[in-house]
Amino acid sequence: MLVLKLTGRIFDEEDLVAKYAAIIRRIGGKVAVVTGGGEVARRYIAMARKGGASNTFQDLLGIYASRLNALLLISLIGDDAYPKAPSTVEEFLDAWRRHRVVVAGGFQPGQSTATVAALVAEAAGASVLLNAANIDAVYDDDPRRNPNARKIPTLTYDELERILKTSVVPGGYELVDPWSISILRRNCVTTYIFDGRRPEYVEEILRGGNPGSKITC
Amino acid sequence: MLVLKLTGRIFDEEDLVAKYAAIIRRIGGKVAVVTGGGEVARRYIAMARKGGASNTFQDLLGIYASRLNALLLISLIGDDAYPKAPSTVEEFLDAWRRHRVVVAGGFQPGQSTATVAALVAEAAGASVLLNAANIDAVYDDDPRRNPNARKIPTLTYDELERILKTSVVPGGYELVDPWSISILRRNCVTTYIFDGRRPEYVEEILRGGNPGSKITC
Amino acid sequence: MLVLKLTGRIFDEEDLVAKYAAIIRRIGGKVAVVTGGGEVARRYIAMARKGGASNTFQDLLGIYASRLNALLLISLIGDDAYPKAPSTVEEFLDAWRRHRVVVAGGFQPGQSTATVAALVAEAAGASVLLNAANIDAVYDDDPRRNPNARKIPTLTYDELERILKTSVVPGGYELVDPWSISILRRNCVTTYIFDGRRPEYVEEILRGGNPGSKITC
Amino acid sequence: MLVLKLTGRIFDEEDLVAKYAAIIRRIGGKVAVVTGGGEVARRYIAMARKGGASNTFQDLLGIYASRLNALLLISLIGDDAYPKAPSTVEEFLDAWRRHRVVVAGGFQPGQSTATVAALVAEAAGASVLLNAANIDAVYDDDPRRNPNARKIPTLTYDELERILKTSVVPGGYELVDPWSISILRRNCVTTYIFDGRRPEYVEEILRGGNPGSKITC
Amino acid sequence: MLVLKLTGRIFDEEDLVAKYAAIIRRIGGKVAVVTGGGEVARRYIAMARKGGASNTFQDLLGIYASRLNALLLISLIGDDAYPKAPSTVEEFLDAWRRHRVVVAGGFQPGQSTATVAALVAEAAGASVLLNAANIDAVYDDDPRRNPNARKIPTLTYDELERILKTSVVPGGYELVDPWSISILRRNCVTTYIFDGRRPEYVEEILRGGNPGSKITC
Amino acid sequence: MLVLKLTGRIFDEEDLVAKYAAIIRRIGGKVAVVTGGGEVARRYIAMARKGGASNTFQDLLGIYASRLNALLLISLIGDDAYPKAPSTVEEFLDAWRRHRVVVAGGFQPGQSTATVAALVAEAAGASVLLNAANIDAVYDDDPRRNPNARKIPTLTYDELERILKTSVVPGGYELVDPWSISILRRNCVTTYIFDGRRPEYVEEILRGGNPGSKITC
Repeated sequence: MLVLKLTGRIFDEEDLVAKYAAIIRRIGGKVAVVTGGGEVARRYIAMARKGGASNTFQDLLGIYASRLNALLLISLIGDDAYPKAPSTVEEFLDAWRRHRVVVAGGFQPGQSTATVAALVAEAAGASVLLNAANIDAVYDDDPRRNPNARKIPTLTYDELERILKTSVVPGGYELVDPWSISILRRNCVTTYIFDGRRPEYVEEILRGGNPGSKITC
Repeated sequence: MLVLKLTGRIFDEEDLVAKYAAIIRRIGGKVAVVTGGGEVARRYIAMARKGGASNTFQDLLGIYASRLNALLLISLIGDDAYPKAPSTVEEFLDAWRRHRVVVAGGFQPGQSTATVAALVAEAAGASVLLNAANIDAVYDDDPRRNPNARKIPTLTYDELERILKTSVVPGGYELVDPWSISILRRNCVTTYIFDGRRPEYVEEILRGGNPGSKITC
Repeated sequence: MLVLKLTGRIFDEEDLVAKYAAIIRRIGGKVAVVTGGGEVARRYIAMARKGGASNTFQDLLGIYASRLNALLLISLIGDDAYPKAPSTVEEFLDAWRRHRVVVAGGFQPGQSTATVAALVAEAAGASVLLNAANIDAVYDDDPRRNPNARKIPTLTYDELERILKTSVVPGGYELVDPWSISILRRNCVTTYIFDGRRPEYVEEILRGGNPGSKITC
Repeated sequence: MLVLKLTGRIFDEEDLVAKYAAIIRRIGGKVAVVTGGGEVARRYIAMARKGGASNTFQDLLGIYASRLNALLLISLIGDDAYPKAPSTVEEFLDAWRRHRVVVAGGFQPGQSTATVAALVAEAAGASVLLNAANIDAVYDDDPRRNPNARKIPTLTYDELERILKTSVVPGGYELVDPWSISILRRNCVTTYIFDGRRPEYVEEILRGGNPGSKITC
Repeated sequence: MLVLKLTGRIFDEEDLVAKYAAIIRRIGGKVAVVTGGGEVARRYIAMARKGGASNTFQDLLGIYASRLNALLLISLIGDDAYPKAPSTVEEFLDAWRRHRVVVAGGFQPGQSTATVAALVAEAAGASVLLNAANIDAVYDDDPRRNPNARKIPTLTYDELERILKTSVVPGGYELVDPWSISILRRNCVTTYIFDGRRPEYVEEILRGGNPGSKITC
Repeated sequence: MLVLKLTGRIFDEEDLVAKYAAIIRRIGGKVAVVTGGGEVARRYIAMARKGGASNTFQDLLGIYASRLNALLLISLIGDDAYPKAPSTVEEFLDAWRRHRVVVAGGFQPGQSTATVAALVAEAAGASVLLNAANIDAVYDDDPRRNPNARKIPTLTYDELERILKTSVVPGGYELVDPWSISILRRNCVTTYIFDGRRPEYVEEILRGGNPGSKITC
């Protein structure tokens, strides 16, 4: 069983989407996927905010955009996938008991897709979460500003939380937020963070590798 | 009562969306809006087709994209609007009896948003449909190729059908398709087609003007 | 995999319904069925029209009647069938991935059940549609008026479209309409039209026969 | 506020349906209507039973048929009515708080529409139920067999229950069943039973008349 | 296939719930369970009644409480169970065709959970219903008042109905009511009534025993 | 417009529930209420945890229990209230536009009801949240252990966050959690925390008083 979080950025590049779809088709077991909103989400949220829309609607627009990404992936996976993006944990649970692959976007306003991925891992009873991120690993400082920033291959959720508080992490809250960390920690799920532009890392991790960072409870 | 069809192109320009939202807020009576999918729809459908997705899923992606546009508009209109895009005629009917403004995207695979607009006009019992299009009027030939193409200010659905069959109309089926024509004709709805980049035309038409083409049964 | 369209007329004869149910139970593979509204639909639509009901509600009455027919068939098939008539393409898709048999009536106002059958064939990825019709084949003229009308055993959708335009085809739009033709053609589905009063033709066609007309893309 | 139960027989006569629709449109206050299944229900249930369908599906067919009747009435009433037949007490409650008129058919297998009418009266907090029946009043014996059977203008639920147990009442359980009686009694709803072929009796009862039987707690 | 009715009392004792969950996990075949509302239901209904709430809402509170019991049992059974309590017979039917175990609480206002169990047995096509009751068997008189009351090991529904009418049966209508009896009788379901505090009796009955009373049609 | 959060403890005391219902009936404007799960939630979650149920199901049990509390309150308020507890922000939004009073319990696993209250305040566009808590105010230390702990009448969300981090606050996370704080702060909602056993404080706060603590952005 595999839980895979795909940053919305992946959906800005056609080839990447196709490659992830191929990997999911190829993998034998159950796969739960959570997709971010990406560029489409950012653009619609910006338009809504400028026009004075409430935070609730801004979040809903991000959710709709992430579901568009989810549906694209579903359309490329075929008959093994639940044919729509579930909109609640309960719908996910029901779909998950009946389909090999379930692809969700966002669930509800006020939740990041990082949190949705954590909730999905919890509901599925998964022990591992693969986070195909918009950064290649966790660093001890911002690598874009500090050339000496060090990649951290393995760390605990406690250590991650400390780093998030003291330094500006690129990817930041899109990657993980305090709420998703608390859910992953209470279920003792191991998270692998890796560069989302490298779909081949999914299978490398499944074979025991760690191309980015590994976070344990 | 007003039924307004907005081509998806409008949602590629932030200012246009804001202007249409302002007009809908300003108008006193009931307003039903149907939004097209625009650039986002086209991009996702292209990715799905290239990856071998079925026509059903390609249509669903276009529908999801059009609902994203619908939700953006809803978020800018405020409390008068039904807070989501209805997904069937029945849900539209129910929402329409309770809210001043209802904004729909696509309904079901195999239907253009032109057809959705016709079904919405039929369900609402509207006598007029305003089609904010990606063309400024109906022509007797393709104005992009034939510099002598003539704008037709008033015509009947029968005449429109004949033109659609014999010449390549820019905007073509996005504008109107045989199915939407047959629904509009059976309800004798008058359609105004006008340049979607000119939101002010909505109020001009409401005051009795005809800045593009007027189609009658 | 089999997609079967049953004209509503079949549901006016108890024995026919029972025979189709028996065939569907007997067939090994997956079967999607679409049922027309028949006499009940016609009677309720007539009452609604006479009382001034909108076209939307007239269509909805036809849809409810077709779902009554769908449910009757479901009740005779037993545990292999999805226990209700799906009301949208999305619900069909979801049910189809989980059940051997799914029986739909109409989906939405403004769509014939011929179109629903085409959408179902598209969503299921079917290559063949069996249309148990209220006529025994396609003719080059109306056989009820012209004794020399000739039965056409094989034709293309283009040829069918031409015939529909130039002659009064008995069964007419209940059989196929332009919209259903365009969906079947874009998916290159082969349609067999045969006399709905002869259920045994289903198995004859499955064995390679063609008791009525065969339409190809 | 008025709760009106219409026997399915009414829907076998076009004129009666139109007259009831006109009365409901005319009445100023809130109206909840419950429709029986009538001839269509009987025919479909008979076909299902003969084919070996379960009692659950036989009941569901009766429910679908009663909803077809409900939708016909809705289509004739217009914008004041909730546009669909609610399928549960909860949906009725929600619709009832938002619409002047709500028309329900059956709710769930194992319940008569007499019981649905009692549940609807309870949920609406009604003190009176008008039962447009397939008999003109309650009798002390079967008037079709016993020429001396006496019409009973006023009685209590206890007396009604005794009559139902000791004599064959025409209309019998379609009219009232023990379960509907227990619900009406616990809410102390007054029931008027009258000949459903006489729509004018509705207004007569509203003016204080009692053209059939009046049952009190 | 097994249909099991659990009195709400069982949910007042943690150990009993765990034992029933273990038995359901252990049993190989399909299991449909219906749970009563128990102490929580009684307390909330009492508060609502005292505050003047309608019977409809009192019943709904009992239903919500019974669904809480259903969900607790579901949470202890694991992946074999449909992850929520169905709220209608139709939802039960759909879930039942896809899951080994389905656990329902109440369905609709105006129905006891005894009736829900009968409807579930009917929908599932079960021939046996195991009623884990708040009494250990059917007696010919109230054993709490009459020390000579005799346990009746086997009886028919007709006999049960007569006993219910002439004596105060402990457990009374929670156990069986006239409506549930009529549904069980029309499907000729055999009911075993036994002491709900003895979960081991489930397997004893499955092996052919009869620790309480057996009711046949 | 008023958003009122009621700690689940209130539902352990019949009189308190009745008093809050009376206040909500009396207040003229719109009222959104969010109810906690209380003793019932705690008991069911404990049983589930002991039996090895997942965190997802433990959370769902808490949500079901909080909805039972919500329904009890709804049943006591009457026709002004949406007749069920919405299960998502979107359902809340829709109900809120149509009803004077909407009462929600929990929404989704992984969210406290404190967070639900914050999301509801955001969706409703409220500027004030009244938190009827299981503590009478915010203190600078735990008043149960430190007799010198000082009540803080007014503070900012930043100050509240600091206190939550450095001292054991009674009521703690049930009262407010980091996620609910971040939502309230981004919308600049003022929160009043007061002793939930004193319903009269609602009206005192509406008249400008501050019987507990007032938190501003």
